[in-house]
Amino acid sequence: MQSFHPPVRTLMGPGPSDVPERILQAMAQPTIGHLDPVFIEMMDELKAMLRQAFCTDNALTFPVSAPGSAGMECCFANLVEPGDEVIVCINGVFGGRMKENIERMGGKAILVEDAWGSPVCLQKVEDAFLAHPKARILAFVHAETSTGVRSDARALCALAREHGALSLVDAVTSLGGIELLVDEWGIDAVYSGSQKCLSCPPGLSPVSFSDAAAQKIMNRKTKVRSWFLDLSLVMAYWQGDGARTYHHTAPVNAMYGLHESLVMLHEEGLQNAWARHGKMHLKLKSGLEELGLGFVVKEPYRLPQLNAVKFPGFVTDEAAIRRQLLQQHNIEIGAGLGALAGKVWRIGLMGASASDANIDKCLGALKQVLK
Amino acid sequence: MQSFHPPVRTLMGPGPSDVPERILQAMAQPTIGHLDPVFIEMMDELKAMLRQAFCTDNALTFPVSAPGSAGMECCFANLVEPGDEVIVCINGVFGGRMKENIERMGGKAILVEDAWGSPVCLQKVEDAFLAHPKARILAFVHAETSTGVRSDARALCALAREHGALSLVDAVTSLGGIELLVDEWGIDAVYSGSQKCLSCPPGLSPVSFSDAAAQKIMNRKTKVRSWFLDLSLVMAYWQGDGARTYHHTAPVNAMYGLHESLVMLHEEGLQNAWARHGKMHLKLKSGLEELGLGFVVKEPYRLPQLNAVKFPGFVTDEAAIRRQLLQQHNIEIGAGLGALAGKVWRIGLMGASASDANIDKCLGALKQVLK
Repeated sequence: MQSFHPPVRTLMGPGPSDVPERILQAMAQPTIGHLDPVFIEMMDELKAMLRQAFCTDNALTFPVSAPGSAGMECCFANLVEPGDEVIVCINGVFGGRMKENIERMGGKAILVEDAWGSPVCLQKVEDAFLAHPKARILAFVHAETSTGVRSDARALCALAREHGALSLVDAVTSLGGIELLVDEWGIDAVYSGSQKCLSCPPGLSPVSFSDAAAQKIMNRKTKVRSWFLDLSLVMAYWQGDGARTYHHTAPVNAMYGLHESLVMLHEEGLQNAWARHGKMHLKLKSGLEELGLGFVVKEPYRLPQLNAVKFPGFVTDEAAIRRQLLQQHNIEIGAGLGALAGKVWRIGLMGASASDANIDKCLGALKQVLK
Repeated sequence: MQSFHPPVRTLMGPGPSDVPERILQAMAQPTIGHLDPVFIEMMDELKAMLRQAFCTDNALTFPVSAPGSAGMECCFANLVEPGDEVIVCINGVFGGRMKENIERMGGKAILVEDAWGSPVCLQKVEDAFLAHPKARILAFVHAETSTGVRSDARALCALAREHGALSLVDAVTSLGGIELLVDEWGIDAVYSGSQKCLSCPPGLSPVSFSDAAAQKIMNRKTKVRSWFLDLSLVMAYWQGDGARTYHHTAPVNAMYGLHESLVMLHEEGLQNAWARHGKMHLKLKSGLEELGLGFVVKEPYRLPQLNAVKFPGFVTDEAAIRRQLLQQHNIEIGAGLGALAGKVWRIGLMGASASDANIDKCLGALKQVLK
């Protein structure tokens, strides 16, 4: 058995994105204890910087000690009780995963379905609320990583509020990449991932909960169906003045990395980061169109950071093309997922991967392999 | 907001343990995709080395993408269905956490309680099986991190087998530190952590399941109460010939670290690592006794890697002593936990922390602060 040495790839898939050397080096700093006072201070900075990235003042804001899927589960496990009706919008893989979460927590999922590649239809959500007046949660994906579509989170949250429901939002691919205004839009529960527009390695899932969501959690009649993700326990570690109580052992070095990535985001400025993703998307778009590649999603709903594209008709083995990109050019782009498997590629421009150099490299390589 | 730079500590608490530079550097290697063929090969090596460390041929052996508490939850979530009777042995914090897990999965916990610091009593377990003949799982902690006691895992597994039950074992603190023979003892489900005797940063939880356990999981009547930890889904990513299916995004760089730590364990030899922990314990013990510190656990049941010690009578503020060790000597030792909070210290000798240099440093510092 020998040490592992990965190749150097250019990551332009649906995440992980390229991780800057600064973040990798931050993660290689000496491990200290998860209850060390110096570490607790770092946690407090992490929470403050996450609030800035989420545009929220929510006290209950921290990274779950596991990847984005666990962040999703943290939101549903804490907010849904057996018998609860939850309206869930499905227009891609991750809406479907939300439904699974609701059902495993004993909730009743009321589906609002839209075509893959289309945004969530507001009228259908309105109709669902009218048909199911007991529903107290609306769950939807802000930026669908499987299709590259952006739904109107602001309008959806307003609809939820009108009907006395909390909003629960998947922002895995949006945080740090496009406008995401948790407080202004009135999002009640939101989860994200470290490995997308924050450019960290995967492994942490930033979450944030409004006071109304925290209240619903405090008023639960049943215990959360997960000890690991039970916020009433987790928060003894993440909140409180000074001393914190052990719940689980936090992934210390991964948190160093997330801290550094948030410092970098702060240095660039959140609005500047959003603008960069938009600008790079336009550059990629014009290059892809020159190569004859079209988009799955209509222009007004396209995510800059996740470009689902249809490959040219002469491509018969799309996997072979991706393999060539990886093996000959060290470039990773994403395959289609779920209903779009084998039908599209997903080209990510997330975090550090949203750069001129990456786009030039990717377009140059695509040109060669599509010759 | 500024970059975070942790102090260099000597970690002699209940974990995390000191992380060797080789492992930190492995984690700082460039991130690649979680579906990259090169990464899949690394995952296969990781599984093979974990099997060696667990002394098992179990096909279903891999690291859960989250800390030890999630590994525990993975075992209970997959093996327990609503209504199932589970005998759970409680002789410290982590047995109590097992009970919580059973109940949150809808199971009925049958408690076998022993004093904190004592091993699990075989006769009580036998009695519990006789009183509850429908119980099909026996859950216990091999190495109780909260007290430093070792229970007789071989005998307990044999008892479970006699009564037609599966054994579910917490080996968070034992893996790599003391004898742990998953196949020879007939353990059916076992979980551990990366940050103890494997000397990785926290964040991954190696698990292994026997064929009988895998069978029970395949025959479930209800869905697992966690999408993230549902083995029927997770294994599409960890198993299969060649291509793997996306389930969640694995913590890529954390896995580099675990891989390197297992290479190091392989280089040292598993038996040699066990012997080193034993030898270092004897050295620490004689030094502690010279300082007048006694052990919580009777000699035959003591864990070499976790030493729960009673501090001298003249110590009135034990937290102040630990603070002095940390601030003046950069040494972390652990506080007491649960029923032993404020009553004991926990001195860890785990993985790389089980060294002559660490023990000399720790004893020297203790001598000074106890003057």
